[in-house]
Amino acid sequence: MTIAAEAASDLYAPIAPGLAASETVLGELMRDVSESVTDLFKTVNLYGGKRLRPALVHLFGGLVGQPTHEHAALGAIVEALHLSSLLHDDVLDGADTRRRLPTLNALHGNEIPILIGDLLYARAFSLTLTLSTQDASRELAEASVAICRGEIEQSFLRFRPDLDDAAYFRVIGDKTAALYGASCSLGAIYAGADPQTVEAVRSFGVSLGMAFQIIDDCLDVVGDEGLVGKSLGTDLETGKMTLPTLRLSRRLAGEDKRRFLVLLQQPLEGSRREALRAAFDLDPIVAECQTEANAHVANCQAILERFEDGPEKRSLVRLCGFVLSRGY
Amino acid sequence: MTIAAEAASDLYAPIAPGLAASETVLGELMRDVSESVTDLFKTVNLYGGKRLRPALVHLFGGLVGQPTHEHAALGAIVEALHLSSLLHDDVLDGADTRRRLPTLNALHGNEIPILIGDLLYARAFSLTLTLSTQDASRELAEASVAICRGEIEQSFLRFRPDLDDAAYFRVIGDKTAALYGASCSLGAIYAGADPQTVEAVRSFGVSLGMAFQIIDDCLDVVGDEGLVGKSLGTDLETGKMTLPTLRLSRRLAGEDKRRFLVLLQQPLEGSRREALRAAFDLDPIVAECQTEANAHVANCQAILERFEDGPEKRSLVRLCGFVLSRGY
Repeated sequence: MTIAAEAASDLYAPIAPGLAASETVLGELMRDVSESVTDLFKTVNLYGGKRLRPALVHLFGGLVGQPTHEHAALGAIVEALHLSSLLHDDVLDGADTRRRLPTLNALHGNEIPILIGDLLYARAFSLTLTLSTQDASRELAEASVAICRGEIEQSFLRFRPDLDDAAYFRVIGDKTAALYGASCSLGAIYAGADPQTVEAVRSFGVSLGMAFQIIDDCLDVVGDEGLVGKSLGTDLETGKMTLPTLRLSRRLAGEDKRRFLVLLQQPLEGSRREALRAAFDLDPIVAECQTEANAHVANCQAILERFEDGPEKRSLVRLCGFVLSRGY
Repeated sequence: MTIAAEAASDLYAPIAPGLAASETVLGELMRDVSESVTDLFKTVNLYGGKRLRPALVHLFGGLVGQPTHEHAALGAIVEALHLSSLLHDDVLDGADTRRRLPTLNALHGNEIPILIGDLLYARAFSLTLTLSTQDASRELAEASVAICRGEIEQSFLRFRPDLDDAAYFRVIGDKTAALYGASCSLGAIYAGADPQTVEAVRSFGVSLGMAFQIIDDCLDVVGDEGLVGKSLGTDLETGKMTLPTLRLSRRLAGEDKRRFLVLLQQPLEGSRREALRAAFDLDPIVAECQTEANAHVANCQAILERFEDGPEKRSLVRLCGFVLSRGY
């Protein structure tokens, strides 16, 4: 499975040649003189799914100007950074499944995914150095710093149901939305956009990333593992505080609150996720989170209004809807 | 403890101002808006000891020309990359002690050192982008790829006493010597050296790194933990094949060989290292390894002969001796 062998495919139609070129570059980036390393990279490539970040590079390249051969490299680079962070994430979360496949840590222990993640990151960075300007190196170094800082802060905030929304939004802004923002801004920069457009487009990416992560965090609690295709409930198991759990915590009082805290913080026989779903009505919580995600997507839509109609714009509009409605 | 509060200190006298400037940059690189992250960085900084890589940057800067303010940044960057890889190494090895201190994984589990290592790496890379040319970014991206590939190959070759020397030398060339080579060549490049000198100087660094790692691998088996200041025997515990174990394996036959393989590959009560030392005479093996290290250092010395006498050259000559004789 490469790009979007799913619903997204016709959404990507306007940028199909660009995405295919990115796949070729990504394939080269993940080929090694050692056959064993290449085989590991092939497995890693299967964890990538929707190719949302490369799609943003190409869609904004086409929206603001003319995509160049550099967009092919940029698409591969942002996907490689994303895959690299997935590998480390799955180690940190002890996750078993990713896109319906066993994770690299489930297959080989922690050593291989840590090292293959480091290697992929270094390779992707190396590739940024071949581009015509340093913009990609700079943007992506900054995004990488943000990703790490978000993950570290998230780790500090484990098992803290008293967290405020601001801390949660800061964490997901860093760990998820920064790379979405960089994907959009780089697509625009390398198509010759002016600085004001670049910042508007970055804001689109950041808002889309926020919405994506909020929905992802809801799926961790109420999603269908068969549909989502990855281990769910890992946020709960590892004590990651997410918008649905924070909002639930705030709603509860008295005995309900006590039961929630025990469920969240004490060792538990069986699945914490199933216990949570059995004990509490999560529908109103999920509706609240959906409202937050909608607000971010509304910002995306407002930004798109500045641009003239065209196939890329229409795809971006549909992408906004897709992020909100995805069941996977 | 910062730079060389040990024997190395007067060896570093000719470059003391440069090294101090690198310490300042490293301090900035490891300061974060989050106090908790800054505290973690402070602990990480204590794991750095001899500052060999920054010293090489400054010594070769002075040897081939005039060190600039960029050497201060370069020294900090190579040390940051080294510290970042130490953090991931200690996770992979499950090491408890580093420079007489508990490792970050011993203190906080695996998550924090993986993320702090990723963050430090991204920060260091970001800093390379502020330099006047892309040489540092390119050299260090390549060195990082080599480090990861060396570690991955080493992981594939665990518990393989039939390994040949070539595979071992390839592993240590990648995981250790490449960053030594880059430290030397960057010192020369940013002082304006011609390409031929840069390659000679890189060869010095690679040979010094090989010698350093061979001695390190001997210390893992026969070193004094109190003197070396880090967990020893971890190579044996984690099945890493090193020059002393490969040479021992090759020397043994019959019942001795069988005992060795059992000791190496079977679960063992107590320390594998102590059992190995009790069962076999390791002196001739260590002498053989020392001969190999000497040969690499002889290459270093031959390269230094091309340069005129001066304080940096005299320090580099003494550094060669230091690598061979160190007990820590």
